[in-house]
Amino acid sequence: MKDLTKMMNPKTIAIIGASPKPSSVGNELLKRATNARFNGKIFGVNPKYTEIEGVACYPSILDVPSAIDVAIIAVPAQNVLSVVQQCNKANIKNVIVVSSGFKEVGEQGKILQDELVDYCNQNNINILGPNCLGVINNDENVRFNGCFAPIQAEKGSIGFATQSGALASGIINLLPNLKIGLAQMISLGNQAQINSLDVLEMWERDDNIKQILMYLESIPDTIRFREIATRISKKKPILIIKAGRSERGAKASVSHTGSLAGDDSTANGLFASSGVIREIYLRDLFNTAQVFSKCPLPKGDNLAIITNAGGPGILATDTANDYHIPLANLSTSTVNKLRAVLPPQASVANPVDVIASATAEQYESAAEILLNAREVDILLVIYLYIAGRNDINISKYLENLKAKHPNKPIVAVYMTTPDFDDLVKQEIPSFDIPTFNFMVDAIHGISRLIERKNYLNRGDEATPNLNIDKNRAREIMESAKSQGIKQLTTMQSLQIFGAYGLPLPRFGIAQTLKDAKEISNQISYPVVLKLSSKTVTHKTDIGGVITNINNEEELGFWWNRLVDRLNKANLVESLDGIVVMQQVTGANRELVAGVVKKGDVHQLMFGLGGIFVEALHEVAFRPCPLTMQDAKDLVNATKAKNIMGFVRGGMATDLKIVEETLLRLSQLVTDFPEIAEIDANPLMIDDKGRLLTVDARIVLE
Amino acid sequence: MKDLTKMMNPKTIAIIGASPKPSSVGNELLKRATNARFNGKIFGVNPKYTEIEGVACYPSILDVPSAIDVAIIAVPAQNVLSVVQQCNKANIKNVIVVSSGFKEVGEQGKILQDELVDYCNQNNINILGPNCLGVINNDENVRFNGCFAPIQAEKGSIGFATQSGALASGIINLLPNLKIGLAQMISLGNQAQINSLDVLEMWERDDNIKQILMYLESIPDTIRFREIATRISKKKPILIIKAGRSERGAKASVSHTGSLAGDDSTANGLFASSGVIREIYLRDLFNTAQVFSKCPLPKGDNLAIITNAGGPGILATDTANDYHIPLANLSTSTVNKLRAVLPPQASVANPVDVIASATAEQYESAAEILLNAREVDILLVIYLYIAGRNDINISKYLENLKAKHPNKPIVAVYMTTPDFDDLVKQEIPSFDIPTFNFMVDAIHGISRLIERKNYLNRGDEATPNLNIDKNRAREIMESAKSQGIKQLTTMQSLQIFGAYGLPLPRFGIAQTLKDAKEISNQISYPVVLKLSSKTVTHKTDIGGVITNINNEEELGFWWNRLVDRLNKANLVESLDGIVVMQQVTGANRELVAGVVKKGDVHQLMFGLGGIFVEALHEVAFRPCPLTMQDAKDLVNATKAKNIMGFVRGGMATDLKIVEETLLRLSQLVTDFPEIAEIDANPLMIDDKGRLLTVDARIVLE
Repeated sequence: MKDLTKMMNPKTIAIIGASPKPSSVGNELLKRATNARFNGKIFGVNPKYTEIEGVACYPSILDVPSAIDVAIIAVPAQNVLSVVQQCNKANIKNVIVVSSGFKEVGEQGKILQDELVDYCNQNNINILGPNCLGVINNDENVRFNGCFAPIQAEKGSIGFATQSGALASGIINLLPNLKIGLAQMISLGNQAQINSLDVLEMWERDDNIKQILMYLESIPDTIRFREIATRISKKKPILIIKAGRSERGAKASVSHTGSLAGDDSTANGLFASSGVIREIYLRDLFNTAQVFSKCPLPKGDNLAIITNAGGPGILATDTANDYHIPLANLSTSTVNKLRAVLPPQASVANPVDVIASATAEQYESAAEILLNAREVDILLVIYLYIAGRNDINISKYLENLKAKHPNKPIVAVYMTTPDFDDLVKQEIPSFDIPTFNFMVDAIHGISRLIERKNYLNRGDEATPNLNIDKNRAREIMESAKSQGIKQLTTMQSLQIFGAYGLPLPRFGIAQTLKDAKEISNQISYPVVLKLSSKTVTHKTDIGGVITNINNEEELGFWWNRLVDRLNKANLVESLDGIVVMQQVTGANRELVAGVVKKGDVHQLMFGLGGIFVEALHEVAFRPCPLTMQDAKDLVNATKAKNIMGFVRGGMATDLKIVEETLLRLSQLVTDFPEIAEIDANPLMIDDKGRLLTVDARIVLE
Repeated sequence: MKDLTKMMNPKTIAIIGASPKPSSVGNELLKRATNARFNGKIFGVNPKYTEIEGVACYPSILDVPSAIDVAIIAVPAQNVLSVVQQCNKANIKNVIVVSSGFKEVGEQGKILQDELVDYCNQNNINILGPNCLGVINNDENVRFNGCFAPIQAEKGSIGFATQSGALASGIINLLPNLKIGLAQMISLGNQAQINSLDVLEMWERDDNIKQILMYLESIPDTIRFREIATRISKKKPILIIKAGRSERGAKASVSHTGSLAGDDSTANGLFASSGVIREIYLRDLFNTAQVFSKCPLPKGDNLAIITNAGGPGILATDTANDYHIPLANLSTSTVNKLRAVLPPQASVANPVDVIASATAEQYESAAEILLNAREVDILLVIYLYIAGRNDINISKYLENLKAKHPNKPIVAVYMTTPDFDDLVKQEIPSFDIPTFNFMVDAIHGISRLIERKNYLNRGDEATPNLNIDKNRAREIMESAKSQGIKQLTTMQSLQIFGAYGLPLPRFGIAQTLKDAKEISNQISYPVVLKLSSKTVTHKTDIGGVITNINNEEELGFWWNRLVDRLNKANLVESLDGIVVMQQVTGANRELVAGVVKKGDVHQLMFGLGGIFVEALHEVAFRPCPLTMQDAKDLVNATKAKNIMGFVRGGMATDLKIVEETLLRLSQLVTDFPEIAEIDANPLMIDDKGRLLTVDARIVLE
């Protein structure tokens, strides 16, 4: 882990490549740093000038008459290494390279970048970038603006790190309208050395950073990311936009799981498992950030709405319903209190409609009653400016009520005139209630508050004792390996599933018809025959699965037919037996579970199975090893949950068993990292609600 | 249909209840009317004053020394009728009642409202409201602001009608930020007489109205709405927010179709069938409206993106993908032209990354090349203000390019400083490119342009000749009615399905085992037995369906068993036969179709069937009678489309037959309006791709 304390809290900075040319990077850097009233000393480096923008300039960094904590480098790419070498001579151990022309431009740039990073690593120099916008630390004791965004960033409690420097600039431009502010900004650039994980760990320990926002295009190390993010998420919210969603990263694969494991599905799983809130759109990211900046977490989910018009109340109700946010059921006592302070035409149900003529004082009374009500956890205040302006006075009252009710989030939707923002700044400089123009933006943010509250409340449930037979699985796996088999036979796969306690129908392995008859009598008819071959991957393609065998006569008939087919297909040699399995009846509900290894991480999939795997794509992923919480989340992550309950003609299945099944699969790949893919498909639920894995496939690397 | 010409284009108006009291409705109305520079004469009516806000005031409307085109009434509810009576005496035939206290407050208000409307109807008076905000006509020749929203509404080409007056006010407040303007606004209030349909028909004929936006909570007459909206949608876009989505209006019903027909699902169908664009959130409504206000319809779907930073380009690509918008495949010629004008580090793939240092002129060159490219239909320009401001110059260039390329929509996303809006107003007053802060809002609007282009291009395909036997169906229906049967027996239902050419497996009706054997031999084993009873609705509940009967012996066994069960359940008398039906094999794909009558309209449902009907809720509705286009839309409306194609173990089904099946069901309920509900569930697809209705249920009113 990099120690970035000095880089973000310098006492002296040098801008190498400072320039008097308007709109140049070297000029913007200088202006931004000075305008921010840096709590330290700024030096310029440019051989052509002795002063730029009122800052003393020196021919080289070695000429600067002071120790320098951070050098910001904005010289052409080919000169960066020599400048960094000079910095090293000057004992500068933190450099920010804004220059572009490195890895992002191709092979030649990559060589420059590698040389640069090697040099820094050898000399213990922290290097941010190259190809970055710089950094900001808005701490009143530091006031370090080391970036070239066109305006100063509004101050606040957000740490924002981005893999796109331009986006940092774009966002800083928009901050006043977004009503949020930054504590720190770090433009990661090419992340040649310092990366998003270093930043996460720095911000973990910084109490000025109340929430972490990131724009990422890649994750340097998913295993470390999961570990770090899981830890930090318990302390402060991490909100991430992960771009590149549309790229389908699924590799060619023999398993369904493999073919469905796009990079983005697995990123979803990683974030969910790490407690990270993934936002899809920047707009939503910043709406959520505003709510998180200004609201406590609620104790419960129940939303009360105040509005001065019916229509917006209905729209807010619709939207809350879209986000599965329950409207508080107001108690008789609350209703009576509201009735006492509101005009007779007001509606005292939830949404509370104070009607168009409501005064700011009536808003205040209604808000206070609702905030005092035990059945209300969150308050949404909707105000449409109609005749007579009340927005400023309502805001004053809400600000006071917020102080009295520090544990109940208050969010406002004002459909008011554009001058409101200026007015509120003048009249209530401390105003700290999130405000939006539209219901959906407010409710999106509220839903994230609830999500986070639920995340923090859920606790860490221990994984149950799974009681597995690892040695038996190892034996089978070693035997397959010794035969050079990569895709295990059906028999081997089923045996390993058995050793790991996955729910299977009764089955046995037959080498002869006589075996088959004995097994069938033991497990009772009807049975299924499945050939288990070292080479045939798609059993159904050659008719290698025979279902609905009702008696010994039929068994004989089909056994012989299967052997015939094998002979014709010249496959007898590769056979390692025929699986005789109890026919699962009354099972028309099909789930799927599976695992695929991507990079170093096994990704576990669960969702709707059968023909619906591809058609409906109701599957979700989590990285292994699964925690108990991951398993529970996965069970609820897709519409698969809708068929696990009671459905027409079928009893509910025991969700504990589904969760355990997922944990067992996770344990299997954790114990045997050499497994590349697993399919447990279909995973059937019969009419009694029993979960049964009727087919198994394991592929080794 | 009401003629609202005079109401919206008056030469003289009277404000009855005019008041000098600041922020009162009577005062705001007066101020708004005068501030709008009304192109006519304004009179006040208030017995206490002779002048208010510079407007002459009279004791009563009868004292006003001029003929009055429109009276705006803002007096207490109980006085409204007498005021209207005076208006009638003064020969005023258009009144706008802003007063509240009518139907919206309960029974007593309803009485007042009914009296008022009766009087107006008897005296040929057009009445808008009561309980409305008023109206606006921004036509430069009229300049009529007859509403009490706090600020003047920006001028534009949108007609906005709303069932929530407050919302009109809220939206007018936000218009400057939303970058759109209104041609007319009509607050519908309680719609006691003039309603949304009247407004639609007025705006249909008004060339100043380029698009119609509506906020609705109810639709007065869905049959007329469909007729009118379908006609108008072909001329100008209709965008609607229909609130009250979260209320589940599904009534208790014996059919799946009935139980799934919530008010909102059927509203979706109504809008889709009428060519109306339904927006869910106000934010999106106004984003779409901005794009529609300022863009032509594209010729095709292919989007080109220019950006000065990689990250936003990736985000835009992701978002376009979310909305199924294809990125244009740039031709070699286009790429070469781009290469010639852009710096070597620029990316000339799509998105075109002109890089951070790009000048406004480079933006212009790239935009011009892309607009000239035949493979590009739509241009999205993303600009992040970093070092050196180019947004204004880029805007100037885009404005010029727009004039040269009137058939290619140009949309901009500027992540720039908040002063941009003021700057652009000063420097390019005519600026007419839709601009957004975030990609998703721009792309949402673009997706609606494409949707509308597709809607207008699709043409009206005639319904094929369905070749039905209406008389046969009538006979069966009459026979059932004469027996007092409301829910037709399985036999009757299947026979009617047969008469209407619905795809059925072969079947016959048996009264005796001998019949059953003959039928089974004709249609060949395996067969299914289903009892057809006048009283038993859920056949499966008493085990009245026996599947997989493979031969005559099994047939005899099960026949007797079924008769036994009927005897035990005392149901023999209500039996009208046992259906012997070919067993459908190899069909694991289940669809559902059905119809339910809601009010006067039959709603046809189609989607995923079997246990997935309830679990996945992948069904959609369209009102009957279905057009050919409705049938095609329905087939594609849900994920059901994903199982109709080729799936593992099953061939694709002929979509023409699916469409025809839906049209046949629609024809059936159109011919027999007395049908309350139909279920064709499941509608199976077998492995050969054949569509087969294996069960039928028809319920009469």
